[in-house]
Amino acid sequence: MQRELTLQDIYRARQRIAGLALRTPLVRSESLSRRWGCEAWLKLDCLQPTGAFKLRGAVNALLGLDAEQRQRGVVTMSTGNFGRALAYAGQHLGIPVKVCISRLVPDNKVEALRQSGADLVIHGDAQDEADVEARRLRDEHGLAYVSPFDDPLVIAGQGTCGLEIMEEQPDTDLIFAGLSGGGLIAGIGLAVKTINPHAEVIGVSMNEGAAMLDSLAAGHPVQVPEVASLADSLGGGVGLDNAWSFAMTQRYMDRGYKVDEAQIARAMLHFLREEKLLVEGAAAVGVAAVEQHQLDLSGRRVVFVVSGQNLSTATFAEACRLAGERPYAHL
Amino acid sequence: MQRELTLQDIYRARQRIAGLALRTPLVRSESLSRRWGCEAWLKLDCLQPTGAFKLRGAVNALLGLDAEQRQRGVVTMSTGNFGRALAYAGQHLGIPVKVCISRLVPDNKVEALRQSGADLVIHGDAQDEADVEARRLRDEHGLAYVSPFDDPLVIAGQGTCGLEIMEEQPDTDLIFAGLSGGGLIAGIGLAVKTINPHAEVIGVSMNEGAAMLDSLAAGHPVQVPEVASLADSLGGGVGLDNAWSFAMTQRYMDRGYKVDEAQIARAMLHFLREEKLLVEGAAAVGVAAVEQHQLDLSGRRVVFVVSGQNLSTATFAEACRLAGERPYAHL
Repeated sequence: MQRELTLQDIYRARQRIAGLALRTPLVRSESLSRRWGCEAWLKLDCLQPTGAFKLRGAVNALLGLDAEQRQRGVVTMSTGNFGRALAYAGQHLGIPVKVCISRLVPDNKVEALRQSGADLVIHGDAQDEADVEARRLRDEHGLAYVSPFDDPLVIAGQGTCGLEIMEEQPDTDLIFAGLSGGGLIAGIGLAVKTINPHAEVIGVSMNEGAAMLDSLAAGHPVQVPEVASLADSLGGGVGLDNAWSFAMTQRYMDRGYKVDEAQIARAMLHFLREEKLLVEGAAAVGVAAVEQHQLDLSGRRVVFVVSGQNLSTATFAEACRLAGERPYAHL
Repeated sequence: MQRELTLQDIYRARQRIAGLALRTPLVRSESLSRRWGCEAWLKLDCLQPTGAFKLRGAVNALLGLDAEQRQRGVVTMSTGNFGRALAYAGQHLGIPVKVCISRLVPDNKVEALRQSGADLVIHGDAQDEADVEARRLRDEHGLAYVSPFDDPLVIAGQGTCGLEIMEEQPDTDLIFAGLSGGGLIAGIGLAVKTINPHAEVIGVSMNEGAAMLDSLAAGHPVQVPEVASLADSLGGGVGLDNAWSFAMTQRYMDRGYKVDEAQIARAMLHFLREEKLLVEGAAAVGVAAVEQHQLDLSGRRVVFVVSGQNLSTATFAEACRLAGERPYAHL
């Protein structure tokens, strides 16, 4: 039987990943605080060297390998950001990295992966298909397989984000984060709930392809079709053989919300106009959820995990169109 | 005779301002590192709560007042960002703040000042004229006058930015920062040169109205006409009665460059596209200087101080037009 992860695993992860993954700033959003009558804070994990929180878990996973595994290398599947993080960490640590992605991954992320030094394999039309190829390569080449979310070291690494939040704002009432395979919510949830059981952890996914929310509703991992979304980073399934992130999300996440594409687009516009940050749809889903579901945050202390920032201006233009706004039309 | 500032004043400032002003992240720019064959780092002071490094000095200045002065309040003149910082700090510390600005200050900054809780006075067509009014109000109401750049506590506060850079990248070869009244360069210069005399400190101003560069060339403070610029934060004179920042800039700044508006505009576009940050022209002048003057940075470790982020999308649109690009024209 596998043991459960504890806060100690997150402290260990923090000690390990320091130097490669950043401690990111937690900044107050005046604009959101005013709009909702709350204390709104942004945890800027988009400022990680690879533009997303994924680097925390990727570094921790690679540093957990033994010498022989390090030499043989690793393989993963990814919607883009985890692959990029693993490639970056692999290059710094001298560990060969193969990344399997599907054809749904946006061009700018494919390009970044090509330049990352990783061996890139494009396979299938959804992350789950890329995953089949990743597991095949694992067997064929004797590589270590690193799941982007269903791996205890990855989850402990992502948990460092939650630990940093609690250290700086121990009185946080609510934390919103993007929900995909559940690695981030599992890690953050473990850190936050262990430190302050009264804080609420809220996961947000896009309307279509919200694999974890649908799995939680079913009571077990289910497969859902993956479709294109502004929150492309949140695509992909949770794996029918899920061993860690499903149970931990079930345990630590208080609530989940789905948001539609137009609301994600409007939230992306908010980030550019008010926070001066160009962010992916995945980074904006928390703000989108508050707006779409008209959540009452008045008087509460709220943290939004903002990750990532790997998007093209063309994708942002698409978001503007979806939001029904033409902020640059006069150009 | 006034004593000279030392690194101790900067450590004192840091101790004082912690809690109100942030320690900001220093992040690597992959894109600039690749473009110039160097190690390029961005010191993101645009992430300060008021969007610019100015908060460091403003907080330190207010905390240096005695009880009577705190009660009477303070007055300053500003191109926008220092006023906003002082207003923010004043509100947190319960100190009344009057801010005099000229009609050159952009609408979005005026609006932010109106919402800041400060008493706002708009006077004249250039910062120097707003300054005359600020000094008149000082005398009329017995207020403490805080210069945005020519004040030892302000300079020591801004110096904390340089201290943070040296702590994280002690082997920095070059530091680029915006140059206006010289408060930032004086503070950073003191910190950096005291810790590593071999590091070069480089100030950058816009072509028209580069008061400090023209004063340095003349060997004494001179007045220059202030004109509208994308780097509006860098407007204003150095004061003919300058007591601190002129001499410190003379001493600690190795070189200065002027950059034209189109180059500033292109650098602003770089920040949005590659760094995913919407920044003011003042934040982009370092990158603009490297491009315009074709500086050879190969193999060097270079830090760009990035401040501020208080601009409207309309100003960014103007920058796109000046850069001759229409990145959102298809919308």
